[in-house]
Amino acid sequence: MTQTVIVSAPGKVHLMGEHAVVHGAPALLSAINRRVIVSVTTSQSGLKIQSNIEHALKKQADKLIAESVRVVCERFHISPAPSVLISVNSGIPAGRHLGSSAAVSVATVGALLYFFKKIWNPELINTLAFEVEKIQHGTPSGGDNSACTYGGFIWFRKELDFLKTIWQLPYLVHKNLSPFYLIDTGQPEENTGEMVALVRKFMDELEDNGRLLLFQNEQATKDVATAVKYGNEALLIDAIKRGEKTLEGMGVVSPAILPLIQDIEKAGGAAKILGGGGKRGAVGYVLAYYRDKKKLHDIVKKHGYELESVVLAEEGVRLESGRNK
Amino acid sequence: MTQTVIVSAPGKVHLMGEHAVVHGAPALLSAINRRVIVSVTTSQSGLKIQSNIEHALKKQADKLIAESVRVVCERFHISPAPSVLISVNSGIPAGRHLGSSAAVSVATVGALLYFFKKIWNPELINTLAFEVEKIQHGTPSGGDNSACTYGGFIWFRKELDFLKTIWQLPYLVHKNLSPFYLIDTGQPEENTGEMVALVRKFMDELEDNGRLLLFQNEQATKDVATAVKYGNEALLIDAIKRGEKTLEGMGVVSPAILPLIQDIEKAGGAAKILGGGGKRGAVGYVLAYYRDKKKLHDIVKKHGYELESVVLAEEGVRLESGRNK
Repeated sequence: MTQTVIVSAPGKVHLMGEHAVVHGAPALLSAINRRVIVSVTTSQSGLKIQSNIEHALKKQADKLIAESVRVVCERFHISPAPSVLISVNSGIPAGRHLGSSAAVSVATVGALLYFFKKIWNPELINTLAFEVEKIQHGTPSGGDNSACTYGGFIWFRKELDFLKTIWQLPYLVHKNLSPFYLIDTGQPEENTGEMVALVRKFMDELEDNGRLLLFQNEQATKDVATAVKYGNEALLIDAIKRGEKTLEGMGVVSPAILPLIQDIEKAGGAAKILGGGGKRGAVGYVLAYYRDKKKLHDIVKKHGYELESVVLAEEGVRLESGRNK
Repeated sequence: MTQTVIVSAPGKVHLMGEHAVVHGAPALLSAINRRVIVSVTTSQSGLKIQSNIEHALKKQADKLIAESVRVVCERFHISPAPSVLISVNSGIPAGRHLGSSAAVSVATVGALLYFFKKIWNPELINTLAFEVEKIQHGTPSGGDNSACTYGGFIWFRKELDFLKTIWQLPYLVHKNLSPFYLIDTGQPEENTGEMVALVRKFMDELEDNGRLLLFQNEQATKDVATAVKYGNEALLIDAIKRGEKTLEGMGVVSPAILPLIQDIEKAGGAAKILGGGGKRGAVGYVLAYYRDKKKLHDIVKKHGYELESVVLAEEGVRLESGRNK
């Protein structure tokens, strides 16, 4: 009997609050319509991992998948190492702040849990995927894996070392709003850990001015959450612009992409970096909101990039199939 | 058949975060070992209310109790008005920021729910008691009734107009710490609503300096939560002092009681106002922490007040008896 389990998980964007979340402010995340699909099937020749992750990040992804196996097997005392083939088919560009790593962890853990134990428990998937993320990234906030697991909009705040707030906001994007867009500026030179360390150092130096940046960022995050709920476009654009300004103040918006953001703002829209951002060159994906798609397309084209539509508040981790053959 | 239901609920203190909580910062509340006891029994002559609440606040308490009846009856379509005798026996001094009003609402709602419906559901008690509080107080945060309902330590933050964080922290006061104390400075001239309005006006004027006050208050609240969990006395005293300073900055610590607080600090302890505080004269109760009870007693005596021990993280709303006779 060959058994195959297929599980998918979405990528994520930070609508606002990345970096600030490390310093006690809230983050608003959203699952997006880019998914990673993981299948687990019985193998005749030990643990095998296949993935379509692009070359530069393949080794890292393979390690993530191997760690997912280890964490699940440890949790359920599965020994010796299982003989399974794990295939990862990702539609989330890696290393560009769209949560590819969290999505791979969540989908792999979800598929393994169902493969070995016929358990479908998003709470447990999230907990174990966070374990995997910690091994990989040191001190992740836990926001990414929560967004990939639960889907929708996630309100996240680290209150205390031992207390994190994670709420799924019970709404979608209001129908008054037009679509959001993604713009790929390429893979940043710096990884998120380096950017977090950079901001920490910078915030220490800024002292009270750093605290005021955090305060403004928090207000922007709250306003984005409110604007998306009630379809208040003027507030949304204003809040993204204010939030982006604070990210610039934190030093995570590379000068190379500032002109793109400024052109979108000048036209009457708003755009922001995502996640770690970038210091010098590319910043990964940029999130943009602007009602006139044609005009936005022209601006983006002028800067040498492509425009991609994106749907927010997508479904979280999902069991695609778990049949016995 | 005469049926009698008896329910009790604790009062509360703000360990830190009062006032700041109105502006987005967190509050740390604790249920205390002062309780209100409410009994509901069948009556032959319509709705009757008895209470031992002191004269000046009796009318207000009676209204609170009548509103509790109305809210519960409305929720369960109980009509006509029930013929019950409600007796309130309060061990929580009223009008002094110990949560007397929330405790009365919670215990009365709890007793009525059990009397009419044999339902014991703290979640529902909290929701309905919050309705009662809103009728009485306009825009309460919901922190007080949560502390009186759930007991223990409550971490409370209003994130958005439609999102409140309420966590019960899963620990008691660490055994390394000595007891906390209460000092009754008398009933403040101003009520909490007036004090909240005062701070709001003040914060608007302060602009960035107000935001920094909030930031410091938030840090103090977090440090108190951490210190109480791990029994870090030095951090606890330092955090209460820092938090009290921010409350002074907000204008809610009456000059009349500042010398008391300063004397406790000079001796090596810490003390703070509670809840609304007060602008001119008395501030209601003051919360103090100091290891040497004798010395603290002398300081308090010198200022003409009495020292009372208080136990934190007490049990929340409790069904004392619900027997049929």
